[in-house]
Amino acid sequence: MLHFVLEENMLEVDCPCVTPEIVLKASGHVDKFTDLMVKDEKTGTCYRADHLLKDFCKEKLEKDLSITAEKAAELKHVLAVLDDLSSEELGAKLKDYGITAPDTKNPLSAPYPFNLMFQTSIGPSGLSPGYMRPETAQGIFVNFKDLYYYNGNKLPFAAAQIGQAFRNEISPRQGLLRVREFTLAEIEHFVDPEDKSHPRFSEVANLEFLMFPREEQVSGQSARIIPLGEAVSKGIVNNETLGYFIGRVYLFLTCLGIDKERLRFRQHLANEMAHYAADCWDAEIECSYGWIECVGIADRSAYDLRAHTDKSGVPLVAHEKFAEPREVEKLVITLVKKELGLAFKGNQKMVVEALEAMGEKEAMEVKATLESKGEAEFHVCTLGKVVTIKKSMVTISKEKKKEHQRVFTPSVIEPSFGIGRIIYCLYEHSFYMRPSKTGDEQMNVFRFPPLVAPIKCTVFPLVQNQQYEEVAKHIAKSLISAGISYKIDMTGTSIGKRYARTDELGVPLAITVDSTSSVTIRDRDSKDQIRVSVEEVASVVKEVTDGQSTWADVLWRYPTHSSLSQDE
Amino acid sequence: MLHFVLEENMLEVDCPCVTPEIVLKASGHVDKFTDLMVKDEKTGTCYRADHLLKDFCKEKLEKDLSITAEKAAELKHVLAVLDDLSSEELGAKLKDYGITAPDTKNPLSAPYPFNLMFQTSIGPSGLSPGYMRPETAQGIFVNFKDLYYYNGNKLPFAAAQIGQAFRNEISPRQGLLRVREFTLAEIEHFVDPEDKSHPRFSEVANLEFLMFPREEQVSGQSARIIPLGEAVSKGIVNNETLGYFIGRVYLFLTCLGIDKERLRFRQHLANEMAHYAADCWDAEIECSYGWIECVGIADRSAYDLRAHTDKSGVPLVAHEKFAEPREVEKLVITLVKKELGLAFKGNQKMVVEALEAMGEKEAMEVKATLESKGEAEFHVCTLGKVVTIKKSMVTISKEKKKEHQRVFTPSVIEPSFGIGRIIYCLYEHSFYMRPSKTGDEQMNVFRFPPLVAPIKCTVFPLVQNQQYEEVAKHIAKSLISAGISYKIDMTGTSIGKRYARTDELGVPLAITVDSTSSVTIRDRDSKDQIRVSVEEVASVVKEVTDGQSTWADVLWRYPTHSSLSQDE
Repeated sequence: MLHFVLEENMLEVDCPCVTPEIVLKASGHVDKFTDLMVKDEKTGTCYRADHLLKDFCKEKLEKDLSITAEKAAELKHVLAVLDDLSSEELGAKLKDYGITAPDTKNPLSAPYPFNLMFQTSIGPSGLSPGYMRPETAQGIFVNFKDLYYYNGNKLPFAAAQIGQAFRNEISPRQGLLRVREFTLAEIEHFVDPEDKSHPRFSEVANLEFLMFPREEQVSGQSARIIPLGEAVSKGIVNNETLGYFIGRVYLFLTCLGIDKERLRFRQHLANEMAHYAADCWDAEIECSYGWIECVGIADRSAYDLRAHTDKSGVPLVAHEKFAEPREVEKLVITLVKKELGLAFKGNQKMVVEALEAMGEKEAMEVKATLESKGEAEFHVCTLGKVVTIKKSMVTISKEKKKEHQRVFTPSVIEPSFGIGRIIYCLYEHSFYMRPSKTGDEQMNVFRFPPLVAPIKCTVFPLVQNQQYEEVAKHIAKSLISAGISYKIDMTGTSIGKRYARTDELGVPLAITVDSTSSVTIRDRDSKDQIRVSVEEVASVVKEVTDGQSTWADVLWRYPTHSSLSQDE
Repeated sequence: MLHFVLEENMLEVDCPCVTPEIVLKASGHVDKFTDLMVKDEKTGTCYRADHLLKDFCKEKLEKDLSITAEKAAELKHVLAVLDDLSSEELGAKLKDYGITAPDTKNPLSAPYPFNLMFQTSIGPSGLSPGYMRPETAQGIFVNFKDLYYYNGNKLPFAAAQIGQAFRNEISPRQGLLRVREFTLAEIEHFVDPEDKSHPRFSEVANLEFLMFPREEQVSGQSARIIPLGEAVSKGIVNNETLGYFIGRVYLFLTCLGIDKERLRFRQHLANEMAHYAADCWDAEIECSYGWIECVGIADRSAYDLRAHTDKSGVPLVAHEKFAEPREVEKLVITLVKKELGLAFKGNQKMVVEALEAMGEKEAMEVKATLESKGEAEFHVCTLGKVVTIKKSMVTISKEKKKEHQRVFTPSVIEPSFGIGRIIYCLYEHSFYMRPSKTGDEQMNVFRFPPLVAPIKCTVFPLVQNQQYEEVAKHIAKSLISAGISYKIDMTGTSIGKRYARTDELGVPLAITVDSTSSVTIRDRDSKDQIRVSVEEVASVVKEVTDGQSTWADVLWRYPTHSSLSQDE
């Protein structure tokens, strides 16, 4: 939140999950948000067609040593073009390879599209279909006009939203990575398509991390470290604003505790990217399921705002007021309606509309033909035929006009965060085991940074006695006033075991009450301890868990406390 | 969050919105979460039947001066029992009173139940119906076993959840108060039904606020101020834990800025309350729509956990381990299966089950009859008939046994917050107008307390010059590091106008840069200003907006700054 919303002064919105059909018609989701599905012809069990083909090819390549080099090359090619295959091509491949239902070996149906949106009905009439939103972005797009106004009608600006998104997956798999309902955080940064520079790009230009550009994927290379400034200046990353958000996402993920050596930014291949997108990079994190897409950072161009403008008739545009009016050449088409009426009678309206809708190039061609021949053939789409236009019917010219502003559809750069996936990868990257002192046991530790640890500290009296328990309760109260989440453990369990529990929960700091005036604070990862007075302890914990200080900062300010015998 | 979750060490959960049908079958929502609906017989427009009857009675009573005292009494009675009317009774009343569709005056259909849940289908098969959750509570109930375990198998404990809830209202109305998707925050506090005391009740016992007990509503009195301790000790509020949460909700709402004179706690009437509930109070806030239910605080007894236990077969229970084993009298029924087999042959199994399932009272009656007559008539439900049991077939006795623990279904006390409604009422209670200095204009102000104001402060240079703008930017940076939301206004607009904008947004503090070394901070409500050095300004703002200090606290620490000419 702080890292993005406050830092960039973003607007925040919270749009509903239930979305009327018309919004998702406009965005293209009703028609195109589908996966190809096949059914077991006997049991009716459903499978994703591409998953079956992918699994088949992978298994053949890995396990069947008898296949020819030619066959292997063919299977590799199939894997490479998997996302491009049409329903028919996918069906043909499944047939060719004799792929059957995995569980029953029954024959499969031909692939057919299955829409991934959960459908419902809004209101009591049953006449208003709706869907659970498949992404949060559309809510921001349809509210663009208001958001632009709230931002003082100025570009660039961003709006952020976090909430549930819903995708009725054909076969959820990979544990928490592919689920039917998940938390999505999306930022829509609206920018002038003619100026995608970013004033703060210099702050991230020197970052260096693993990037995996499109060309290097195609040519079979590996991801490599590229300075972000270089990636933008060489045109590997399409523009500065996109580059700025890639840098900010890198900082965000590593600050959460994601291992930078298992984090890469992979550019979408041409076949992965929506046709309208200018460029798209995925932050992929490596975990036991492989490299997982956790954040997508895309330049979606003006596609979404245009789509909603077209469907709703409400122009979702921005204005740039010129300091001085600018002279521009404008196409002017003047029609002589009387002549047109006489010539085309009942068809007049359609001819007029077609003439008025001519683009500059077409109009200048018609003009040239009229001037040379006196008449011109003209194709009227709505009539489905060619009519003859005479010179007397229309005047086409270019005139110089003064314009006071430019009206345009903004481009949108969208970082989109799969929160559940990030958290899952964070668990894997934060987990380690250390041997216990006796060496016969492995102790589990989550090394969550203080900023993200759900519980910031534990409080426990060293031994069970009323005095220490009173002090522990007093400290708990001061932690509450400081807004610090804590866990209190009054059981008489050995202190070593209580530390081990703390470590297993990923709690960064443990407070042990071993006197009534001062207590010890233990750091989870180093196991170092310092001694702090009861009055100060809450503020020291706050300082470290808020990120104002590091453990190293406070370590030298307070006496260290050694108690090797306690830990384990 | 802090007020409830941290303060009470609650568990936090986040359950999905899409819920499988079986969960909502168990909870009763699939069968009973309905409103009675009528349709305009010609246009098909839908209306809530009770709304139409209510509106009719109210209008008659208010506007029709010709009605008799008898008729008026009848209409008042209808309003009082509205929630108790069956579908048939409601239909009869609509007919009697000649009520037609409000817009068209067309005749109406008979009332029929309309389920308020949004239905959908989970997975690709179309065979797994699901619903969007109508409340967040069920997610906590079905996870009770895990939550109880996380809490160390100890009672009482609470779990809290905030998220979207969905109700497909027949006719959304009252602006933001009755919508189809809304944010709900629910706390489920699980407690031993035999001990509903609360260790921290004394902290709220002295609170006094408007309460409106059931009896006083029925007898036509008004809400009156009752000390909470008295309400509990006199049994007006069912138990201490329920009372504790009523007190905590009162503190929460007033600390947000809800006017305590327009806040009352109204007890549910018998006909409003679910049959299983032990007691229920609504925090109602008065706004321009009348008294609005914003928080419900209910003792739901053990109903929910029992319902899920019954449907799933998984016992959702708690255990109380006894320090010393306790002697209890237990009913022991010993069957002589051979005799039973000879007597009942194929029906033996059902007779045996029926005998084993006897409650204590029934068993002791059978025992007495057997002892006096040598045989007893016994009704076997599953056979649908009465059989004769002989003394030789069964021995019934009470034996003393040692028990090591008590197993029971916990009761649940549930505060349930309609976040949108609270925020709406907060807007109304925070809004006021003050005359401008010239007196010819009203200035709008939102007096949001610093804790809840979405924007904590504004920053603006007094006049447009580069030096002041640099200072303003420097302060903005320090506000970001302190995690304070702000708005910067570099326009050359007059300082008075910029203050007015700030007030209209409910921003509590405004920083004006009028030198490069120190700046002024202005308090929205008093319009007092203090002078603070540039270095200190972020920490002073943080102190006030975090709630560590009040404006009055900082006012005397810094020199005041008078600039009557600036404000307006």
